[in-house]
Parts: sequence; structure tokens; C-alpha cells
Amino acid sequence: MIKVAVAGCIGRMGSTVVETVQAADDLEFVCGIDPYAENTPYPSFKTIGEAVDACDFDVIVDFTQPSAVADNIRTALAAGVNCVVGTTGLSTETLEELASGAPEGVCLFYAPNFTTGAVLMMQFAKAAAPFFPEAEVIEFHHARKKDAPSGTAVRTAQIINAARNRSSEAPGKETEIDGCEGARGALVDGVPVHSVRSMGFVATLEVIFGSMGQTLTIKHDSWDRTSYMPGVLLGIRSVGEREGLIIGLENFML
Amino acid sequence: MIKVAVAGCIGRMGSTVVETVQAADDLEFVCGIDPYAENTPYPSFKTIGEAVDACDFDVIVDFTQPSAVADNIRTALAAGVNCVVGTTGLSTETLEELASGAPEGVCLFYAPNFTTGAVLMMQFAKAAAPFFPEAEVIEFHHARKKDAPSGTAVRTAQIINAARNRSSEAPGKETEIDGCEGARGALVDGVPVHSVRSMGFVATLEVIFGSMGQTLTIKHDSWDRTSYMPGVLLGIRSVGEREGLIIGLENFML
Amino acid sequence: MIKVAVAGCIGRMGSTVVETVQAADDLEFVCGIDPYAENTPYPSFKTIGEAVDACDFDVIVDFTQPSAVADNIRTALAAGVNCVVGTTGLSTETLEELASGAPEGVCLFYAPNFTTGAVLMMQFAKAAAPFFPEAEVIEFHHARKKDAPSGTAVRTAQIINAARNRSSEAPGKETEIDGCEGARGALVDGVPVHSVRSMGFVATLEVIFGSMGQTLTIKHDSWDRTSYMPGVLLGIRSVGEREGLIIGLENFML
Amino acid sequence: MIKVAVAGCIGRMGSTVVETVQAADDLEFVCGIDPYAENTPYPSFKTIGEAVDACDFDVIVDFTQPSAVADNIRTALAAGVNCVVGTTGLSTETLEELASGAPEGVCLFYAPNFTTGAVLMMQFAKAAAPFFPEAEVIEFHHARKKDAPSGTAVRTAQIINAARNRSSEAPGKETEIDGCEGARGALVDGVPVHSVRSMGFVATLEVIFGSMGQTLTIKHDSWDRTSYMPGVLLGIRSVGEREGLIIGLENFML
Repeated sequence: MIKVAVAGCIGRMGSTVVETVQAADDLEFVCGIDPYAENTPYPSFKTIGEAVDACDFDVIVDFTQPSAVADNIRTALAAGVNCVVGTTGLSTETLEELASGAPEGVCLFYAPNFTTGAVLMMQFAKAAAPFFPEAEVIEFHHARKKDAPSGTAVRTAQIINAARNRSSEAPGKETEIDGCEGARGALVDGVPVHSVRSMGFVATLEVIFGSMGQTLTIKHDSWDRTSYMPGVLLGIRSVGEREGLIIGLENFML
Repeated sequence: MIKVAVAGCIGRMGSTVVETVQAADDLEFVCGIDPYAENTPYPSFKTIGEAVDACDFDVIVDFTQPSAVADNIRTALAAGVNCVVGTTGLSTETLEELASGAPEGVCLFYAPNFTTGAVLMMQFAKAAAPFFPEAEVIEFHHARKKDAPSGTAVRTAQIINAARNRSSEAPGKETEIDGCEGARGALVDGVPVHSVRSMGFVATLEVIFGSMGQTLTIKHDSWDRTSYMPGVLLGIRSVGEREGLIIGLENFML
Repeated sequence: MIKVAVAGCIGRMGSTVVETVQAADDLEFVCGIDPYAENTPYPSFKTIGEAVDACDFDVIVDFTQPSAVADNIRTALAAGVNCVVGTTGLSTETLEELASGAPEGVCLFYAPNFTTGAVLMMQFAKAAAPFFPEAEVIEFHHARKKDAPSGTAVRTAQIINAARNRSSEAPGKETEIDGCEGARGALVDGVPVHSVRSMGFVATLEVIFGSMGQTLTIKHDSWDRTSYMPGVLLGIRSVGEREGLIIGLENFML
Repeated sequence: MIKVAVAGCIGRMGSTVVETVQAADDLEFVCGIDPYAENTPYPSFKTIGEAVDACDFDVIVDFTQPSAVADNIRTALAAGVNCVVGTTGLSTETLEELASGAPEGVCLFYAPNFTTGAVLMMQFAKAAAPFFPEAEVIEFHHARKKDAPSGTAVRTAQIINAARNRSSEAPGKETEIDGCEGARGALVDGVPVHSVRSMGFVATLEVIFGSMGQTLTIKHDSWDRTSYMPGVLLGIRSVGEREGLIIGLENFML
């Protein structure tokens, strides 16, 4: 049994992590940590220092705030606790500095994206890109999403471009009819990206590769934060077998 | 048995029509007409005048040239032969003038698009548009297609806009990230249209409607000129029950 | 302003209807009705009789129980209130009997399905079926759904079969490899139906029509009960223009 | 420049290979080989023995017959020519025996499937399977295809099952409604496989993986034998860097 604590335990993501750990047969949920925790139906502490002093756990999962996460990690690593971190706002430099203070055999795992399917989609796009002359990305989000294209779509286009060892052959925006500019999408590193914004979607991303007489499509749909949980569980189960700094769920997947 | 002649019988489209008519149990292929016809394995004539004099047929299918089609229609209608016309380049005015010379009970049927699925797709888009706040069009064609968006995509967007009795609520291009202009597609009559150009596609068009908690998608794929044949057969079988000018396959479908 | 009451106002569906009516500019939410209503932030009554005596409203929306719905409808119609009913368990005979007691100009509207997209999908399938030799249905639901195929998939197959004026040409189960029985799906009225059951889906249904060189696909996705709301609003707005019994949302859509 | 000969040069696949090699900037087409070759617009020979004696080439591509392929390979390898073989009907034992006679530095490359997208699809399915509790396969082929499921679908299901280190959790056929057996598809190694047969399709295969709150879909479409050509080119360009027996295009792709 891997013993697990959860920092940010009463937040939206943290509380889902608590439920998920409690439901897993091979994990033991030890305690929650949150400055706002009150009357939780499980042991909880205001600070990670108190938790480390009072309880024994192998892994801490951190979904807190940019202002809190660095101190949490520092305290946990010093206590020999492996870290699984999903809180955003940490630079690679900060992560490296934090990991440099870790005792031997202790691991700091950080992932910008815990959705297993999205991580695989990007890895598959990287693997397919060299073999297909053409690639386009279409992403679908709810109409309330303010920016276009999405961050994941931009990253996917960048990954595709980097994996091709040639400049793009994407047919260009010069083919657009006057008054219909934008039909061919946004060219991100030579990859056309199209953004659909509509009620009825949550988050879908599709990569379409084209070659002679064939297409290969990789599509990922996710619709709520439970899509992060398989990745969080994978992190908890894998972090004990590594040490030092590991960035990205793909390190545990391929 | 409906007796059928085919004008343009040795062209790409015409020769496919000949085969299709020959294969249909309820149709009799009588003769072909083409100025370049030589040694055809069936009766053929250089001009429609010769064909009308020599043979008896109920319907003529015309896939010829803009320069020839008007004379063909005039001669056929005068002889009491119903016309099924797929040759492009005829204005509505010309069609009306030609039909005005038709004897009673004779029909001139013209369709800009004989693909049954594409015609239904546009009709369904028209029917759905009033009930969905949002609609987007994505079309996929081979990379050699020079223009974007496709003509069918533009027409579909116009149909959707006309069927909504309000101005569009499509979230706009103002949400695009700097340097990524075009992500939200081309706004055609308030409907975002996205054009994918890639090897491995022939002709696909997808209309996506969004509303609270749901999406409705209508998608049409076609991959060669045989996709015109069900519509040509429908025209041949339906034209005898009508008279005067009829424009558009939807008149025989809904 | 159309004045609206909601029966079953504290149920899952009813409470969503209350919010939706409150958010609509052209509707006025007057009161809720529910035997379990307590301390609601709006006027509410235990029975429809009390509501009718105390308030004035044009339309009642009923999402209650099979045991309560008939009495609710009878009381509402007698008071000259139009009814929009989504409660299941009413036979056509009961609906006809209830409607026969309605005063002139008052309408009883019942719909087995309020999802606008699903209703259109079935109507479009009916319209397309005569023009395509082949049709198959694929439906995708969460793995917890116990039955296969879904009721909507079965109804869609029946609609397709009825709309074709010929027996099916669906290639049959005789092509299945030994040991792989079921590959060709369930034949429902001659239409192959395939059921996918997997985590990550809510409710998706896809009808695929095939003809020479083309396919036409109609797909509906819905992911929560808000997908009922556009249909409920359409019912509320349309019911005042009709009288007597109307069954099915398609009567207000085509 | 890699010098290439093509055995089976006047067959359907072979003649497409000839055109593809001629069109590639980095390849030189030297000669064709075919017992039925007559008046070809390029140098051709009746047997591989004659070709080897008369011309100098680095690679031979073989799309011939089960009865001819073994002798072709034996002669080519003995002459120090690398082989790219797509002819079916060779057992692994025969391939091993043939390769054992190859001089040092010469390679025998055989692929059961040269379609780059199909090979990647299977590799991606293998990589994703351990991370998703559920997987289903849907394949779409023309109605004339006699068997169901397709061979590629069966292989994909087997690959998925082998990659999961647990027995399947696929919800079973016990959920099917009486009279609708087959809705849940064919269970191939615990993976439900659904086969659509319809006009308008050529060859499409879709793998759908499901997990908490997400799905990952990998889809491959191909529509004619040109889809083999990128794989044949990859084989020609890669075979010179290897030696001995290599089976499967994935060895040059990942």
C-alpha cells in the first residue's frame, strides 16, 4: 500500500484526488492539507509542516496555488516524501532548484497535463509527423473559451513541426477567397490550426495526418476534471521508482 | 421502361451515366450523342437532331459543354423529350427561356449538384439552423484544390444564415491570439467556415450545430463521380411526372 | 411574456427547468409545484390545485411522476392552462382521454424526447432513408448502461425501415467469421445496430447512410439534462398556438 | 541515388510502384521484371536472373505471386541486392530460411502491411492500451467485403489485449436485449469489434479507448493502393542501412 497525502484537499481538483485515492485498492489515503480545511471527514492539517510531523506518508499530491506550492514541495522533499505536482506556475528553473535539494532516492514529479489521453495524443502526433507530408489540427471548445487556438493545440502544432525534419508543405492561406480570410486556419509553426467554439463541446482536439491515399486521425475528448485522475494515479504509483526531477506524464507512459 | 438517351456519352461523366442507365432494371438505354463518338458499342449520333430523328426516347441526360447544352435542350424539348441536365454554365434566365418553349407536359430539370447526400445535407442544415444558436462548417478536400472555402461550404453557410431568423451569435475572430489569425475560420454570413487541405481526402463537408448540452453533426463524404449517379437516376425517374422548369434535386427528395 | 409554472420543481429535471425559464427574456416564472417543496426561493405550492387557485399562469411544465402526472394535467387543462409534459409512463390512450376534456383552444403537448438534436436526427434519418440503399446505426453510451441497443437506437432503426419502401439490403450476419459472431451488429428491422459501451461517453448516436461513392452521416451527442432545455423552451413558446393533443417535438420543428 | 528494380512490374501494385519510384528524386528506376512484360516504356526482363545479369541495382521491390516470390528473393539476395517484399503467402519459417542465405550486409525486408498509417495505428493502439480500461474497434468496409471482422481489426484487437496486463473489463454481450443479439459486437480476445459494411466506404478502422472522463480515438482511412506507396518508399530508403531479416514496417518507423 502506498500512503498518500493530498495538499489542496478541499479545492475542486484536490477533493477529486482525495476521492480517487480513497477508491483505489492499492493506495491508502492518510491525510489532507489545506489552510481552509475544517471538519473534514478525514484527518487534515493547515500546513504541510504539521502533516509531516503528525503522519507518515510516501507521496504527496499537490494541487494548490502558485504562492504555496514551492514551500510545500521543499518541506515534503526534505522529509523524504515523493511529490506529484499539478499546480501550475512553476518555472523549469524553480523545479530544478527544488529538486536539487531532494535527498537521494526521492522524486519530484511535475506534469503540466495529467490527462493520459492528451499526453498520448501529443506523443502519437510526434511519432506520426515524420511519415505524413501534411498535418492539420482542429480543436473544439465551449463558446465561453476566450482564446483561440487553445494552448494544447498550439503545443501540438509545435510538436508536429519539430518532429518533421523539413519545412512545412502545408498549403497556405494564399488559396483563400477574397473576403473569406481565415478559412485555412491559423498557421502555427507551419501547421494549420482550426478552432471551433460552440455550445455542446467541452474539450476535443483532433490531429489529422494526410499522405498518399490515406489519412490518420488522432482525437482526444475530455469532459471534466475526472479525466486528470488516471494520470494522477499513474504519477502516485510511478514516482516511487524514480528519483530527482521528472517533468511530464509521458515519462511514465512510453 | 423509361427510354433514355445520353448527350456527352463519351465524356467522363456521360460515359458513367451510360453504364448506370444500362445497369438499371427499369431503364432502357437507347442511344448516345457526342460529336466525338466513334465505334461505340451502342447506337450513337453526332448531334441531338440526328438522334431525335432516328430513335424514340423519353428522357435525355445532358452532361456536355456550356457551348452545346442550350441547343441540345431546345431540340429535345421541342421533340417532347424530358431533359435531365447536369452541364454547368446555364443562368436561371436562360433556363427559364428554354423551359418557356417546352410543349405542355414536358419537363426541363436542371441540378447544380446531383449528389443525393450533399443535397440532403444542405436541406438538413436549413431545417436544423433555427433550433441551434451556433453552427460551424468544416470542409476537407485534397491539397490540390486551389480555392478555400469550397463553393459547397459557402452555399451551406449562406443557407444556414438565411434559415436563422436572427443575426449570428458565432463567437468572433476577436478571440484569436496575436499571430494566430485565422484560427476561428472564415466568417461567411456569420457562420465560421474551416477548410482543411490534405492528401488523403477527396470531398468531405461537415456541419456542426451546437446548443445547450448537445451537438448535432451532419457529414457528407464523396469520393468519385459515381456519387452523382443516384441523383441522375432519381432525375430520370422523376422528370416524367412533372412539367416546366425544375431547378434542384431537392424537389424530388422532400 | 408567457407566464409559466413548473410541476416537480425540486426534482432534477424540474429544477433545471425553473432555472431555464427564469433565464429566458420572454418568459415569466410564476411558481413551482411539488409536494416536497419547502423554503424555495420562489413561490411554491404542494398541489396544482392550490397553485391554480392562487396564481395566474399560461403554461405548466410537468416533470413529475407517473402516479401524479394525469391528475396534474386534468386540473391544469380544466383551468385553461396549456400543458408541456415530459413525465414518462402515459399511454397514448390516456393522453387522448385527458385531451378530450380540454376546453377549446387549450393544448396538451407531450414529448417522449425533448432533445431537439435527437428529434431532428430521427427526422433526418426518415427523410434520407429512401435515397440510400444502406444504413447502419452506431450508438455510444457509458459502460454502466445495462441494455444494448439503446431505446433511441432501436426507434431510429424502425424509422429507417419504415421510410424505405422495400425490404432491407443490409449485408447480413452470414458474413461473420466463426467465433466472431456479432461483428455485424444486431439486425433491428433489417438495420444493423452497433452498441459501444465505454467510460468517457455519455450519449451519442450516429446514423450512417451509404450509396454509390458517398456516405451521409447524422450524429447526435448529448451530455447532460440541459440538452432537454431547448426543447422545453420550444414547447412552452409553441403550445399557445395550438390546441388539443400534440405528441412529439417534431410537430413544432418541421 | 538508390537504384531500384521492380518485380511484378506490370501488375496492379507493381505498376504503381514503378510510377512512384520514377517520381522520387532520390531514387533511380533501373528496370522491371515480369514474365508477361512486353513493350514496356522502360527496360524490362522476363526473369530476375536476366535482370541481375544485365543491370546493376541496389534494391528489388517484389509484388509478384506466392509461386514466384521465394525464387526471386533467393536470386536477389545471392546477387547482393536488398529485398523489399510485399507479396503475401510467405511463412516466417520460409523468410528465415531465405534470409539465412543472404551475404553479410544484405537485408530481406518483408511487410504484411505497407500502409504507414495502418502500421502506426496498430503501434499507437499497443501503446495506449495499458492506460485505458476500455477499448473497442469499429471497422468500415464496402458491402462487397465478404468476411467480418476484417483481418486488420482482428489483429488490432489481439494487439490491444496483449498490451493490457490484465483480463478484459469490456462490458459483455449479456447486456443485449433479446432479439438484438450482436449489438455489442464480436468479442475478439476480450475487445468488442464492430463491422460496418456499406457502399461508400473503402477501408476505415477506428480504435476507441475510454477512461474516466475521456476518450482517445485513433482512426485510419485508406482508399486505394497508393496508400501502400509511402511505406514502399520507406522500405526502399531504409533497407540499405540494415541486414538480415526484418519483418514489419514498424521497424523503420519508431
